[in-house]
Amino acid sequence: MTAAALAAIADSRVLDLAQPMRTGMPQSPNHPPFRMQLERRHGDLVRADGGSAANELIITGGHVGTHVDALGHVSQDGYVHSGHVAAETQSNLGLSRHGIEEFAPFVGRGVLLDVAAVHGVPHLPAGYEVTVDDLEQARDRAGVAPRPGDAVLIGTGWSRRWSEPAAFVGQTGGVPGPGLAAAQWLADQRPCALGGETVAFEHIPAGAGHARLPVHRLLLVERGINIVETMRLAELLDHGQAEFLLILNPLPIVGATGAPVRPLAVVSP
Amino acid sequence: MTAAALAAIADSRVLDLAQPMRTGMPQSPNHPPFRMQLERRHGDLVRADGGSAANELIITGGHVGTHVDALGHVSQDGYVHSGHVAAETQSNLGLSRHGIEEFAPFVGRGVLLDVAAVHGVPHLPAGYEVTVDDLEQARDRAGVAPRPGDAVLIGTGWSRRWSEPAAFVGQTGGVPGPGLAAAQWLADQRPCALGGETVAFEHIPAGAGHARLPVHRLLLVERGINIVETMRLAELLDHGQAEFLLILNPLPIVGATGAPVRPLAVVSP
Amino acid sequence: MTAAALAAIADSRVLDLAQPMRTGMPQSPNHPPFRMQLERRHGDLVRADGGSAANELIITGGHVGTHVDALGHVSQDGYVHSGHVAAETQSNLGLSRHGIEEFAPFVGRGVLLDVAAVHGVPHLPAGYEVTVDDLEQARDRAGVAPRPGDAVLIGTGWSRRWSEPAAFVGQTGGVPGPGLAAAQWLADQRPCALGGETVAFEHIPAGAGHARLPVHRLLLVERGINIVETMRLAELLDHGQAEFLLILNPLPIVGATGAPVRPLAVVSP
Amino acid sequence: MTAAALAAIADSRVLDLAQPMRTGMPQSPNHPPFRMQLERRHGDLVRADGGSAANELIITGGHVGTHVDALGHVSQDGYVHSGHVAAETQSNLGLSRHGIEEFAPFVGRGVLLDVAAVHGVPHLPAGYEVTVDDLEQARDRAGVAPRPGDAVLIGTGWSRRWSEPAAFVGQTGGVPGPGLAAAQWLADQRPCALGGETVAFEHIPAGAGHARLPVHRLLLVERGINIVETMRLAELLDHGQAEFLLILNPLPIVGATGAPVRPLAVVSP
Repeated sequence: MTAAALAAIADSRVLDLAQPMRTGMPQSPNHPPFRMQLERRHGDLVRADGGSAANELIITGGHVGTHVDALGHVSQDGYVHSGHVAAETQSNLGLSRHGIEEFAPFVGRGVLLDVAAVHGVPHLPAGYEVTVDDLEQARDRAGVAPRPGDAVLIGTGWSRRWSEPAAFVGQTGGVPGPGLAAAQWLADQRPCALGGETVAFEHIPAGAGHARLPVHRLLLVERGINIVETMRLAELLDHGQAEFLLILNPLPIVGATGAPVRPLAVVSP
Repeated sequence: MTAAALAAIADSRVLDLAQPMRTGMPQSPNHPPFRMQLERRHGDLVRADGGSAANELIITGGHVGTHVDALGHVSQDGYVHSGHVAAETQSNLGLSRHGIEEFAPFVGRGVLLDVAAVHGVPHLPAGYEVTVDDLEQARDRAGVAPRPGDAVLIGTGWSRRWSEPAAFVGQTGGVPGPGLAAAQWLADQRPCALGGETVAFEHIPAGAGHARLPVHRLLLVERGINIVETMRLAELLDHGQAEFLLILNPLPIVGATGAPVRPLAVVSP
Repeated sequence: MTAAALAAIADSRVLDLAQPMRTGMPQSPNHPPFRMQLERRHGDLVRADGGSAANELIITGGHVGTHVDALGHVSQDGYVHSGHVAAETQSNLGLSRHGIEEFAPFVGRGVLLDVAAVHGVPHLPAGYEVTVDDLEQARDRAGVAPRPGDAVLIGTGWSRRWSEPAAFVGQTGGVPGPGLAAAQWLADQRPCALGGETVAFEHIPAGAGHARLPVHRLLLVERGINIVETMRLAELLDHGQAEFLLILNPLPIVGATGAPVRPLAVVSP
Repeated sequence: MTAAALAAIADSRVLDLAQPMRTGMPQSPNHPPFRMQLERRHGDLVRADGGSAANELIITGGHVGTHVDALGHVSQDGYVHSGHVAAETQSNLGLSRHGIEEFAPFVGRGVLLDVAAVHGVPHLPAGYEVTVDDLEQARDRAGVAPRPGDAVLIGTGWSRRWSEPAAFVGQTGGVPGPGLAAAQWLADQRPCALGGETVAFEHIPAGAGHARLPVHRLLLVERGINIVETMRLAELLDHGQAEFLLILNPLPIVGATGAPVRPLAVVSP
């Protein structure tokens, strides 16, 4: 297998699907803000042989930058996925059930459903609700259907707005995303993970904020499907390939409700 | 290419080469300690519809857990790689040159040189210096030679000691690793990255601490080769495959001197 | 002395001049945001005897909440106070000169110059420049003049706006504060410290942001006078006493450019 | 009152009872480690007028360095002080009852009971249990008895060992402190707070670690008396004055189980 895999990869291109992480980047106000700063700089400590090393401190939430939501991130009526009592799965050690370490690193088939392309726009309007019809058109347009176990990415083009923090987060203007019906359609494809470009994989109408998260409930609590958020899909959308090798390996932070990830798509050149 | 890659992957196994991250895990005392703790727990805030979400705060250094060293991590006599004056490449924004974001995500050929196997031990002794002869024997034993652009991993078996924090870090007892001669041999293979299981990819004799880092100087400053540290190679060593598809995608923290990564090896089942 | 001091205190009232610290409180966007969150909660770890303890993690900047600026906080043309080269006084250990630990805990005479009262308003308008005439009127109105070594507090009433974060910080609307002339008049009284209610002890006109800090330069770099910011003076202003015993004991964080403090005024009942 | 207080203070000396705070200082391993590091340094950002400012980031636990324990820090059998159910008083906002903000800033009578002096030693031995007899002898020796509402400090001399981190913390060797009987005697004096020099105000025998905290239970849960820990009493012990004006003003961190403080003793010169 290895020779075949290496040969296939050699003749390919790797797309980086993560947003760059830096202090001040757009993120949900519900989570601790990302901050990276140097602690030691070159010259602070110089060894006798003339060597010196710089290092940094990083503070972040688990749902900041491109990241994967653990199943245990959300509860409903006191229960997390598979019927565990939420209150009994959390402590100073984090989650004892459904933490991000339960998500097995994914190296497999990725499928892109490009809804922005269906509408012929670089990105969907703020507050737009992605519908079942949108998804079916995207699938038919690409000629590639999701199969059970795939990772399915929904193209809204919203990652193109990364450099406009307030618009990107959409606290007032909203963001495009799947409504509950579209999420059900997606869940029925039985993917292992669903990914999008916005801070929350939800349809957020203008003025609504993050007061309701029905898609999270459906996917994480009811269906056991992980969510990837704040993906940088712009380059993949431009490339246009709907089926690819996707790599999804969030940091193995034991007990975390989510963790940063740098997803990669391996596509034809 | 995509169909071939997917077919090859389908018939394979993915090994997780990252150590699990949790508060209190072994790490270098030179870097900010990793800490993850829940901020909101289920039940703290319950929406009208019965939904609730938990989240966390993460504090870490960039050289904590399994991670990649950026070229700009180390300087010598005031200069970083490619002759930039170190003092001019650092600010409150981090490194302006040779930060970890310059390391392109790697999806390619990985080669394992298993020195512990050469010696017929589960792990090399603390303070053991890996030699050129060790590496050549490991290569010949495997029948797989590094090629330019590969990522080359050196098996010492040290990741098996993860659950013994003091021994693992080796402040008093030392750790096994390449001496300068072995590092030169490795660099001469022109790999894109070199990886190991210890906190620092160095030969640290008992009692020496981290006072000298000649291998870092050679690789990062002189040769421009990134280093992967604290890898969990135990499972790969047990599996025994010397050539594989390796994925190496550190978090894209702009200006950081290093960043956490969850490397994956795709091997035959 | 002790009996006299205790007798005097017994017949007095202690006013708390610090703003309460909590996640989300108003602060300068130039500094790391304050965050406090529980790590262990009661019940996470219960000892055999039924006891349990909760604890927290605190992240903050040194110039967040009520705090004292160290002399080394600001430099001018590469120099800090008393002519040290700024670049030679800073490292991974913080400041080696003029860190906050050099500010001796102050227990002494405090004098209030209430400029809001001069104008007969609860608080001065956003962007108002406090003048020399304002200060002289405030002094004459109170009948209490600053003496060398005193801590002098300037009442603008701005601490009454603490619950309006955007207005309080004044990024767009500005804040009231001393212009350079007023600051020179204040410095000429030779106080040991000067305190105010805003995020920065400066006159910030509407739309100006924090692009220029002439008063910081004058006080910290040229005159060696510490500054206390974000004080909660509202209660003291209401009380109306212009001379009192003031306590000013910032946390002794070695090498810090500033540190949180909970100042107290001991006044007549 | 103010003139009298100022006159009394003018003829006095202020002793700083806080340990200096810096990265790596001794602290309980049960709490997040203190860390202070510069973010911006002078020269990173220089304004057009030649001005530049340095700042820092601070990470700490609430029970690190010299600090005050809030009543809500400890629970017993599920209850905190005054019979509140512990589980109902904690959330992402911290403690809703008995957080440190409930401790009113103290400016009042401090009494020192110097047990080390009773034994004629610079500091009591590691693991020594302070007894009722010790306290009574210390009181009689000083000729000063605690009165209700006082803050009472117990001198063990242990703060002299600050520069020996492992010995100071006493994980293996233990620390001197009041046994339960002595704590009951102290509580019966009805002080508003009790202070000591060790990491935990407890008698910790060699090898015992912090597995049981009976004095915390008695003072915080049953009697409602705050505890001040890690005080730097050495200078006060040397000075020898047993009655003084004490200032105790922990940072007003809303909902925190403890907070740093810089206590001051105003004594005769």
